[in-house]
Amino acid sequence: MHPSLRCFLDQHDLDGFLFVGDSMSNADMYYLSHFLAGDRFALLLSSRSTLLVSSMEKGRAEKESCADECLSTSSYRIRELFSQLGNPGDAYCHVLKDFLSEHGIRHLGVPFEFPAGIYRSLIRDFSVDILDSPAAAWRAVKSPFEQKAIAVTQSACEKAMRRAVQLIASSEPHGEILHRHGRPLTSEMVRAEIEVSLLEDGCEAADTIVAGGRQAADPHARGTGALAAHSPIVIDIFPRDKTSRYFADMTRTVLRGEAAREVTEIYEAVRTAQDAGLRAIRAGVTGAQVHLHVSEAFNDLGFTEREGQGFTHSTGHGVGLDVHEKPSLGDLGEALLENQVVTVEPGLYYPDIGGVRLEDLVVVRDSGHENLTHFERQLVL
Amino acid sequence: MHPSLRCFLDQHDLDGFLFVGDSMSNADMYYLSHFLAGDRFALLLSSRSTLLVSSMEKGRAEKESCADECLSTSSYRIRELFSQLGNPGDAYCHVLKDFLSEHGIRHLGVPFEFPAGIYRSLIRDFSVDILDSPAAAWRAVKSPFEQKAIAVTQSACEKAMRRAVQLIASSEPHGEILHRHGRPLTSEMVRAEIEVSLLEDGCEAADTIVAGGRQAADPHARGTGALAAHSPIVIDIFPRDKTSRYFADMTRTVLRGEAAREVTEIYEAVRTAQDAGLRAIRAGVTGAQVHLHVSEAFNDLGFTEREGQGFTHSTGHGVGLDVHEKPSLGDLGEALLENQVVTVEPGLYYPDIGGVRLEDLVVVRDSGHENLTHFERQLVL
Repeated sequence: MHPSLRCFLDQHDLDGFLFVGDSMSNADMYYLSHFLAGDRFALLLSSRSTLLVSSMEKGRAEKESCADECLSTSSYRIRELFSQLGNPGDAYCHVLKDFLSEHGIRHLGVPFEFPAGIYRSLIRDFSVDILDSPAAAWRAVKSPFEQKAIAVTQSACEKAMRRAVQLIASSEPHGEILHRHGRPLTSEMVRAEIEVSLLEDGCEAADTIVAGGRQAADPHARGTGALAAHSPIVIDIFPRDKTSRYFADMTRTVLRGEAAREVTEIYEAVRTAQDAGLRAIRAGVTGAQVHLHVSEAFNDLGFTEREGQGFTHSTGHGVGLDVHEKPSLGDLGEALLENQVVTVEPGLYYPDIGGVRLEDLVVVRDSGHENLTHFERQLVL
Repeated sequence: MHPSLRCFLDQHDLDGFLFVGDSMSNADMYYLSHFLAGDRFALLLSSRSTLLVSSMEKGRAEKESCADECLSTSSYRIRELFSQLGNPGDAYCHVLKDFLSEHGIRHLGVPFEFPAGIYRSLIRDFSVDILDSPAAAWRAVKSPFEQKAIAVTQSACEKAMRRAVQLIASSEPHGEILHRHGRPLTSEMVRAEIEVSLLEDGCEAADTIVAGGRQAADPHARGTGALAAHSPIVIDIFPRDKTSRYFADMTRTVLRGEAAREVTEIYEAVRTAQDAGLRAIRAGVTGAQVHLHVSEAFNDLGFTEREGQGFTHSTGHGVGLDVHEKPSLGDLGEALLENQVVTVEPGLYYPDIGGVRLEDLVVVRDSGHENLTHFERQLVL
């Protein structure tokens, strides 16, 4: 049980805090239970932690989870209730209420994302407060084990980046596009190379950005079709290790062919701004201050954001069991804490040129940061 | 817009139905918007469909979604509201209320899984009903396009199954375990073979079961370590095509070495029960009836469920944008409709022997079913 839980429950005068969801998509639930399931289950945090799962999952929950107790909805007669009530939601709410009563819960906390249908049913019989999940803040500070897990994913990420960069380096400009073995080199081919590499290292990537030319002017565009020669190609890889469930995140921008002077200037500005951001990071500094350092570095070099062009996003975000989590390195970012893991990813985007982004993953330390990224920053291949 | 939406809104006297979530995990939102995003957005269904996304996502939403209108939270001043209110949840609720008012919404429906924090805020200013999402029923009946997409994923699934079976067939019993090139053949090695094959076909598999020996007695165990010789190995593959987002699902059970007579009998019973289930399927028959046919086939052969052993799960489920969706082929399964896509997957599980499961994926037709699975059922390799 997390050491801050007692304090959280006392502070809000709660008998317990309840999650209902699946731990494939709800990282708080995975973090708190170490039980990975794609089907819905319940997790109650009170004096001890209890899982309520389907009878099919009980054996696995007992083996794999770190919960103090694992109970099955069958022992609360969910099938009979479903037959009687005719609706699976009603039957489930009935089971949950019996489960909560049996655990002595009267005053209950639930997270903001808790299912409204269950909330509406619970408030008839319990006092229920909707609160920000305490786990978001706990998760932001990484234990040595978690830092190691993220470093392992980052290492797989860099191997995949190496293969992508080598593939692009082995192509040749052919007019306005890159060719390899007499055929256009596409975003899809580079992405496949990245994905195979990640798979070999036990990682999965739901999405990977390989976007060249004008496509890269949209920071979220995945990229598709033949890659442009003489033009920056943004490669953003954010894999998850399938065993540890921890993400990494990094971006490099490369170019094959001749770089126009303005492209080189943009790249150098992004590198300078990233250095400014990295230098600013240490425990106690706010995410907003780091972001300000990066924005000012761009302004000093004449790259001021205008009409949705230039540096259009925040400087970075926490990385862990979710690829985007606390803390934020943006306008409203709060004070950084030691052992948080964050990205530093400035970029510049122009519809007529494309985009350049550089992203490192670092651990916040009392005296600065430890960079988990060891990949060179080099535009022209 | 789905043809049944008007009817649904009129029936419940609603001005609109609102989803808030991310379409990576919320298949209803993807189905209704065709906009894939890992970050939270809102989808309002009223006389037209409207997306409310972050400014970063607006360009992509306009390009990729099928919504009639795409709006950005920035145009509702979300950053200023966050600065003023100090809490992202409060700021987001404020934006949502302005958005809903502007669209003439007073009486609103939200799904069961809607975030409770937003629900609690909305009910202060709107009349809000929590209803089962109408999309679950719409999604269960597949269009010709969707059937084609599922068949494409199923075809990739069978290619991966072929490679897994060939790998196991190329191993040799070495005492109690399977060896290949002088080393134990493991669940992990077979799973890697499956995953590489799926990746080559543009599919991903969050999880794949390759479980032999006693591990297979738990229908949800993934399987780990050296594979047992002379013992059934359950291979259950449920990939998603990364482009179409549609799943397939199939299971085969194979054995390398000598099959004991009781294992052969179990396998034959599962095959007979699967045939009984397949024969029972046609539009108008209930999922409960299909399940009963399968259970009775087992009973007739003397394999009656006892104390959590034998046929311990339901016969099948719908497959589409989620790997488990409507309809159910279980105790409480309702009438099947033409063009639903369902699994038929009986199995028998015994702690001292292991498990056998066979799973086909079929389309419900008026006169029977169309089997999308073309893989032989053969126990001994």
